[in-house]
Amino acid sequence: MEEDTTPALWVYERHKDITALGFKVEATLFSGRSEYQNVDIVETVAHGRMLLNDGIVMISERDEFCYHEMIAHVPLFTHPDPRRVLIIGGGDGGTAREVLRHPGVERVVMVEIDKLVVDACREHMPSVSGALDDPRLTLLYEDGVQYVKESDERFDIAVIDSTDPVGPAAPLFDSAFYGNTATLLGEDGIMITQSESPFYDPEIQRSMFGNQRAHFKRLHMYLFSTLTYPGGLWSFGFASKGPCPLSDFDPERATAAGLPTRYYNPEMHRAAFALPTFVTEQLSDLLDRF
Amino acid sequence: MEEDTTPALWVYERHKDITALGFKVEATLFSGRSEYQNVDIVETVAHGRMLLNDGIVMISERDEFCYHEMIAHVPLFTHPDPRRVLIIGGGDGGTAREVLRHPGVERVVMVEIDKLVVDACREHMPSVSGALDDPRLTLLYEDGVQYVKESDERFDIAVIDSTDPVGPAAPLFDSAFYGNTATLLGEDGIMITQSESPFYDPEIQRSMFGNQRAHFKRLHMYLFSTLTYPGGLWSFGFASKGPCPLSDFDPERATAAGLPTRYYNPEMHRAAFALPTFVTEQLSDLLDRF
Repeated sequence: MEEDTTPALWVYERHKDITALGFKVEATLFSGRSEYQNVDIVETVAHGRMLLNDGIVMISERDEFCYHEMIAHVPLFTHPDPRRVLIIGGGDGGTAREVLRHPGVERVVMVEIDKLVVDACREHMPSVSGALDDPRLTLLYEDGVQYVKESDERFDIAVIDSTDPVGPAAPLFDSAFYGNTATLLGEDGIMITQSESPFYDPEIQRSMFGNQRAHFKRLHMYLFSTLTYPGGLWSFGFASKGPCPLSDFDPERATAAGLPTRYYNPEMHRAAFALPTFVTEQLSDLLDRF
Repeated sequence: MEEDTTPALWVYERHKDITALGFKVEATLFSGRSEYQNVDIVETVAHGRMLLNDGIVMISERDEFCYHEMIAHVPLFTHPDPRRVLIIGGGDGGTAREVLRHPGVERVVMVEIDKLVVDACREHMPSVSGALDDPRLTLLYEDGVQYVKESDERFDIAVIDSTDPVGPAAPLFDSAFYGNTATLLGEDGIMITQSESPFYDPEIQRSMFGNQRAHFKRLHMYLFSTLTYPGGLWSFGFASKGPCPLSDFDPERATAAGLPTRYYNPEMHRAAFALPTFVTEQLSDLLDRF
């Protein structure tokens, strides 16, 4: 978190030293340091509470629904019968909250390396972390890389809800990690990955999708909007052993589920896979076409 | 343009004093003041040249294609035979550039109130302003409000490429202006309006669409992403006397046109009309459903 030198308190996140995103802050509610990173939670003037890891905005209460609904409901409404879900990362609890809204989900294993993130969000962001006490959820404070290497559980969906590929999350972008995750998935298995900014991070995206390519039958990317990440437009990777997020998606099933979503809906599900021409061109040799 | 107090030169645009967007700057290329506003053009480190009116970012060379392709090609590929196009505002020339890419367009009247914007962009942003010399274009330095009140020309499409509803652009958001614009349009007429941020400006959007409602048969809104406006997600209003932007849109015609677009494509055309649930709810009584 970078201190502004003007009298009012702002947090500014500078991205690649070319652009910056700032939010006006009322107070710092929590500041701690774990073995892995600095963890801060601030009360902003107009974005609710905001979690920052090493000064990078993770989520705000104002717009976290965009991220968490899209990371969860797109794979859960594509898979024919999702019962067992693995979440790597996602310490704020928002992804687990959305996954657990699906009544068919029987078991969620969430593997978060940094207990401090979970503890801070449990205390200061209950609207996000509230589902972490769901009895269907097992929360492990472990390294996700080791977990997918050693586990013999089988999952329908794996959600890699990671930070950027620096620091503790860097190995979550490797081919070995993606391969091990793929082996935990059943034949209709889907892996979702936080896949950065199509505007600012095409090199990271090319590396990620290149590392995923060999382990999955289908590889797509879908987009959503956020207030709190540089550039506003953000992406998730959709890697699948079988199901197609468009032709195997049944909008009636999504509508009938009646989930209380504020961003996701069947039209947004489909629309998210439409890519601007420059984005398609950046990744055309790595992603499948519809 | 707000001066940063750190040694490096940044421009920061603060929005509603709650969020800020910053860009690292190498040099200021132009600073002037017209009767209407301050006009600055800066060379940024990573976003090309950037135009600011009264300190608000209008466009950057890096991402202006998103805005200009979406404001132009969505109506031009929806209208059955667009030949005559009115542009109100759009002084940088980017909207005219995209409109004039359509070989069927015979005449464009562009009404920009502030000659200083045009002059500055002609000199410092030729990649954006370059089409302003097209012989099919008539450029008038007049008040668009007066123009639509007094003109007896007829147009197929009107594009209201305005700044925010403060200062010189405020009357471009009134019911009288929309009504006068509607009378200039033929029976398949379409009016596109810059309609602000779905996240930050729902009140402005409600006012705009409320003011448009009585003058048009169909009212929709579509979305696109930008690097340079607060929140990243931005919108255009689509007001039509007849054509539907989905059912009357022929993707084959758009593909066959072969325009050199970097954002727009037939899939993005359709996808742009899918709205997040919270956006639909904010405007549900004002917009038509598909």
